Amino acid sequence: MAFALPQYNPPDFSRPQFLDAPTVVFESVKESGVAPEGFHATSVYPEYFQMRKGEWRLLRESRMDCVVVLKKNGGLAVTEFRRLKEGDLVACGRRENGEDGIFVHTEAFDFFESSSEKFPFRSRITRETSFSIDYDELYELLGFEQRNGFIVWVVGPAVVFDRDARDAFGALVEDGYVHALLAGNALAVHDIEAALFATALGQEIYSKRTVELGHYNHLDAITKIRTIGSIQKAIDEGIIHDGVMRALIRKKVPYVLAGSIRDDGPLPEVIADVYEAQDRMRDLTRNATTVIALATQLHAIATGNMLPSYKIEKDNRVRPVFFYTVDMSEFAINKLANRGSLSARSVLTNVQDFVVTVERGLRKRFGKSFVNPT
Amino acid sequence: MAFALPQYNPPDFSRPQFLDAPTVVFESVKESGVAPEGFHATSVYPEYFQMRKGEWRLLRESRMDCVVVLKKNGGLAVTEFRRLKEGDLVACGRRENGEDGIFVHTEAFDFFESSSEKFPFRSRITRETSFSIDYDELYELLGFEQRNGFIVWVVGPAVVFDRDARDAFGALVEDGYVHALLAGNALAVHDIEAALFATALGQEIYSKRTVELGHYNHLDAITKIRTIGSIQKAIDEGIIHDGVMRALIRKKVPYVLAGSIRDDGPLPEVIADVYEAQDRMRDLTRNATTVIALATQLHAIATGNMLPSYKIEKDNRVRPVFFYTVDMSEFAINKLANRGSLSARSVLTNVQDFVVTVERGLRKRFGKSFVNPT
Amino acid sequence: MAFALPQYNPPDFSRPQFLDAPTVVFESVKESGVAPEGFHATSVYPEYFQMRKGEWRLLRESRMDCVVVLKKNGGLAVTEFRRLKEGDLVACGRRENGEDGIFVHTEAFDFFESSSEKFPFRSRITRETSFSIDYDELYELLGFEQRNGFIVWVVGPAVVFDRDARDAFGALVEDGYVHALLAGNALAVHDIEAALFATALGQEIYSKRTVELGHYNHLDAITKIRTIGSIQKAIDEGIIHDGVMRALIRKKVPYVLAGSIRDDGPLPEVIADVYEAQDRMRDLTRNATTVIALATQLHAIATGNMLPSYKIEKDNRVRPVFFYTVDMSEFAINKLANRGSLSARSVLTNVQDFVVTVERGLRKRFGKSFVNPT
Amino acid sequence: MAFALPQYNPPDFSRPQFLDAPTVVFESVKESGVAPEGFHATSVYPEYFQMRKGEWRLLRESRMDCVVVLKKNGGLAVTEFRRLKEGDLVACGRRENGEDGIFVHTEAFDFFESSSEKFPFRSRITRETSFSIDYDELYELLGFEQRNGFIVWVVGPAVVFDRDARDAFGALVEDGYVHALLAGNALAVHDIEAALFATALGQEIYSKRTVELGHYNHLDAITKIRTIGSIQKAIDEGIIHDGVMRALIRKKVPYVLAGSIRDDGPLPEVIADVYEAQDRMRDLTRNATTVIALATQLHAIATGNMLPSYKIEKDNRVRPVFFYTVDMSEFAINKLANRGSLSARSVLTNVQDFVVTVERGLRKRFGKSFVNPT
Repeated sequence: MAFALPQYNPPDFSRPQFLDAPTVVFESVKESGVAPEGFHATSVYPEYFQMRKGEWRLLRESRMDCVVVLKKNGGLAVTEFRRLKEGDLVACGRRENGEDGIFVHTEAFDFFESSSEKFPFRSRITRETSFSIDYDELYELLGFEQRNGFIVWVVGPAVVFDRDARDAFGALVEDGYVHALLAGNALAVHDIEAALFATALGQEIYSKRTVELGHYNHLDAITKIRTIGSIQKAIDEGIIHDGVMRALIRKKVPYVLAGSIRDDGPLPEVIADVYEAQDRMRDLTRNATTVIALATQLHAIATGNMLPSYKIEKDNRVRPVFFYTVDMSEFAINKLANRGSLSARSVLTNVQDFVVTVERGLRKRFGKSFVNPT
Repeated sequence: MAFALPQYNPPDFSRPQFLDAPTVVFESVKESGVAPEGFHATSVYPEYFQMRKGEWRLLRESRMDCVVVLKKNGGLAVTEFRRLKEGDLVACGRRENGEDGIFVHTEAFDFFESSSEKFPFRSRITRETSFSIDYDELYELLGFEQRNGFIVWVVGPAVVFDRDARDAFGALVEDGYVHALLAGNALAVHDIEAALFATALGQEIYSKRTVELGHYNHLDAITKIRTIGSIQKAIDEGIIHDGVMRALIRKKVPYVLAGSIRDDGPLPEVIADVYEAQDRMRDLTRNATTVIALATQLHAIATGNMLPSYKIEKDNRVRPVFFYTVDMSEFAINKLANRGSLSARSVLTNVQDFVVTVERGLRKRFGKSFVNPT
Repeated sequence: MAFALPQYNPPDFSRPQFLDAPTVVFESVKESGVAPEGFHATSVYPEYFQMRKGEWRLLRESRMDCVVVLKKNGGLAVTEFRRLKEGDLVACGRRENGEDGIFVHTEAFDFFESSSEKFPFRSRITRETSFSIDYDELYELLGFEQRNGFIVWVVGPAVVFDRDARDAFGALVEDGYVHALLAGNALAVHDIEAALFATALGQEIYSKRTVELGHYNHLDAITKIRTIGSIQKAIDEGIIHDGVMRALIRKKVPYVLAGSIRDDGPLPEVIADVYEAQDRMRDLTRNATTVIALATQLHAIATGNMLPSYKIEKDNRVRPVFFYTVDMSEFAINKLANRGSLSARSVLTNVQDFVVTVERGLRKRFGKSFVNPT
Repeated sequence: MAFALPQYNPPDFSRPQFLDAPTVVFESVKESGVAPEGFHATSVYPEYFQMRKGEWRLLRESRMDCVVVLKKNGGLAVTEFRRLKEGDLVACGRRENGEDGIFVHTEAFDFFESSSEKFPFRSRITRETSFSIDYDELYELLGFEQRNGFIVWVVGPAVVFDRDARDAFGALVEDGYVHALLAGNALAVHDIEAALFATALGQEIYSKRTVELGHYNHLDAITKIRTIGSIQKAIDEGIIHDGVMRALIRKKVPYVLAGSIRDDGPLPEVIADVYEAQDRMRDLTRNATTVIALATQLHAIATGNMLPSYKIEKDNRVRPVFFYTVDMSEFAINKLANRGSLSARSVLTNVQDFVVTVERGLRKRFGKSFVNPT
């Protein structure tokens, strides 16, 4: 059975609730960075704004908790509060059913309704939930997205702490299943530590032996890259022979390394300003059709915040954006769910097993699509 | 590289600490079920008792927190407190270094010393620990044990809540990697529910759809087996076509289903008396050379309690007993570690992934050793 | 504001759906212990059976996953499958809306509907949920129940591993807030270990120092009680001066210690047969108006299974039964929720803090109601 | 018993291992931001550098994973790699026992050795560990530190999600137990949301009711502060009447709000550049004598990285720095332990209960030291 995207159900604006609806009101920004009172905040759902009577316009790019600005050319832009300029016209109105000229379309795709919620038995995802179908659906989805979509991975450092997971993720990159990567300093540091010393935080990533003075290894890895100037140059100089960062750079896969207060170093590529990092992450997620977040609460929530549940394709078709989170703890999953990132699917497991299993499953189904050139 | 068991390091009883050691003292039981004051309690380690000056005898079968009884024939038996009879002679003495004629040999196998404990970095097993080597070692071990050992699996119901994990565990049984199974009522109930209705607690084990009135399925499964009289008979009647219980029975693999206060039903095979269940579990674990506990804190701790860290083979060689626990939570792992089950290795992941990965890994290495006869 | 129980909303049997409903059908048991096909399984909700046209009778005592038997005297009894006798007449029919003469009343009490479920934000209980109101409501509830209800505590051993929590729970017993206790062997063993040696599993319950040979302490505690014959006698002999078990016995609070395969010993009071233990637990929970389960997944689920969401008082008024679970993990809470124990409220915290806080809160509000007589 | 700090055990430099030790070597920085090869990285322990034969100098301020620079005036400065300037002289040598002229003093305070590690039973901290003594010791410690030390709290947003915890933390500030606070944007946002709307992420912080359009509340709170210009001004204008931020500002307690990629807004006070935020956090932690981290893995690890295990007082006495972490999960605790932050003590519980209990315990012992002036 060929993979097919769920159909988009456009709203029926001929329904009575919409006939009397006003056009949306825009208020002007009095001080840069501050939204006018009564501003409308965007959600993850497709949202329609009645610009003229009967003309309901869909936001082309959205994300949670932003505001909608009427551009000079008549278009609608979605932007963060902090980027508002004095005089910008911001859509106002908080009722989501059309009464303010704004309609938030929560039932855009059929898969959003989960029949299981009606029964008290087993309505919650836990570690005991069956995940077989999720793997199979993911294989089909990634097979489709590899050619037709834009797959963004959000990756915590645990993926490179384990030899097999690190190798498998590198293979996913080589095989074209990774179109962008969002991570922090630690992922890159420990990936390079593994390339140079075969350790992560001083522990061998296969044998688990703690090597002598191993706690120097990540500092030496950082120092080496800082000396050379960049990861790219280190690869060019031939000192990094494997790993995630090398695969990304070889395949020209864009990535963002966002700084955090936990960082040692950091590596030269790391973005120190978190709001600039958000912007750069947003540059990549605006294209995302599928996002997979692996064992990183910080980056997963950050990405969930900037990810809409839909994407408008070049041919103007509306398709869903898939968001998978893989984590060991129900708390992390619930926390994401509690932020309203409803379209997320969750797999509760160790990301090491997840990455290895997914790489193997894709290879079995689709073969190696990328011939390793080296 | 062929798999090799770690060598046993016998104690050197010519060392000074042993030369002046007394012979062990036995006190007689005054009341059945009650040990004499000062009784010696056994550990998971090999323990030696000086029976006559210079004759240090190793307990042939041991387990944690039992007492040692001098049998009429001069042998030493390890037994639970509750099974003591009036007049039994019980070994007394609590010093473990020989001063009471008892030596607890904590350094019997080289692998027990973990060098990683000396360094502060990454000394604890967490979900971020690398587990690649554990899988590879486990494949080697299971390949060896399939032919030379006795592999006991301790299995929580999560294994049969997922289609792929249930199938994979069935394949492990068929391929000869399961020599005994310890579980509770729930494992068998939901395995049979899956065989009859393709659900677990009313949820399809592949599609996750909640079927109508699905909460009746496990009750109907129990009722069906109670009507027929046993799982064996249900298989004979041809109504169970797949799953773990069918594989066990077909392959004549012994199992114990221990009752618990959570049980519905129960199935006819379930043992209501927990101490009788302990005895039956002990009948199987006394042969164990490798034990793997999957997502069950109750049964894993119970088994850990009755499992020594060594086994004496028929040719009197002493070999280690391997104990793996697979669980999602550091708490479960730490709780086991805190009970002194030191020989345990832990993998922190979802057992669904673990079982599927192990089955696939074994098949890849060793092929299918068992030709499905049907 | 005086505490008031939520009102019971009786079903309106004059509604059309009920007018054409048939009377319930009873089928006879062919083999003891096996329900007839199509049996009706009870839920936690109030259930009505149409005995004669227009006569809808409410089950007086119910619990999850049992069957309904028509007694010789015309009454309806709820019983476990395994207790069915040949010839018993069992209610059949699985539709819950009256079409089979059976009505399951899921909206009996107003508090069952949670408005928060309608919004995507923060609909799940997590460790970050605010629990202040739960404490305050619990104080009011326990103040009421101390005089008017029957409070059953289900207690894991963690409560006696900590000095302050053990003392606080003892005070709750002394002050009349504990009307029954359900636990396992471990709770009693470590409570007595604490009384005799001030340790739990060899670790001092206040200073946390590991005492020399402390792993003998729980075995010595068990042996001491087995020598004397019972906990009661040990108290009579004056060797136990504090703790939970002493408080229970002094105050004549009934308790059940259910056996499990993890047990050492066990203590003489422990019930080895788990189904007998279920029956004894059921003898106590049938009176329960509030149940509080502390850090015990096994006993909490077992109790949840046997606990209805309502109780019929002597004056025939129907009141809700409150079920609190206190645990550290979202998994445990979700697992309970997934079993359909919908009426449960959850507090995610360490039970040590919970018990100490509740004891202090009750004392502050209501003072010490019980004068310690010694 | 009056509280007393553990004594510092200075190293005995007359021991043979030190007599032949060389003086420490300094290498010069060739490129700003890059340490010379063989650099010495600092640890959390007191470290001594042999400057001249027989002159072992203790680092006055240290932290993990930094380098030691010889200042023009002959002093030793500890600094981050990224702050190195060309020509800086950096201490080199990795052996920690004196052989490179560097001695890392891991046994500076008696309390560092934990005897419990020698026994297999209960050596790990879990949720079932007794924490009574930790509370009592903490009361004594905080009573002492309030007058004599510098108490830094590192606080996740969960503390302000709950009414009682938020009030209690405010009282701790008022009573002088908080000398600095490290947090992120979310803590301040939701604290102000609670002040303005009595909600956190739209849910009332006491009743837990989800208010209509409540997901706007945190955005409106941010917008309000951005409009006014700062939290300080909002307090001056009289629109914030309670909460943590108001207490801090009223009491002139310094704080750092470090930005992260998860942030909405942010508030004007938030530092966007994470390395500048590290510097500002370091400005506060350099004075710290006790640090308490509540339910925040990100900030707790960041603070642990910059916190030494000792502090040199004005009178040159060396005292320990205490580091408590309070969290619900063993994973978080183990992760901190795995980073070598050995001096940390952990309490596994919900921070809501922890904060309420600590505030109550301190008030009971020491009374209210601060008279609320309003």
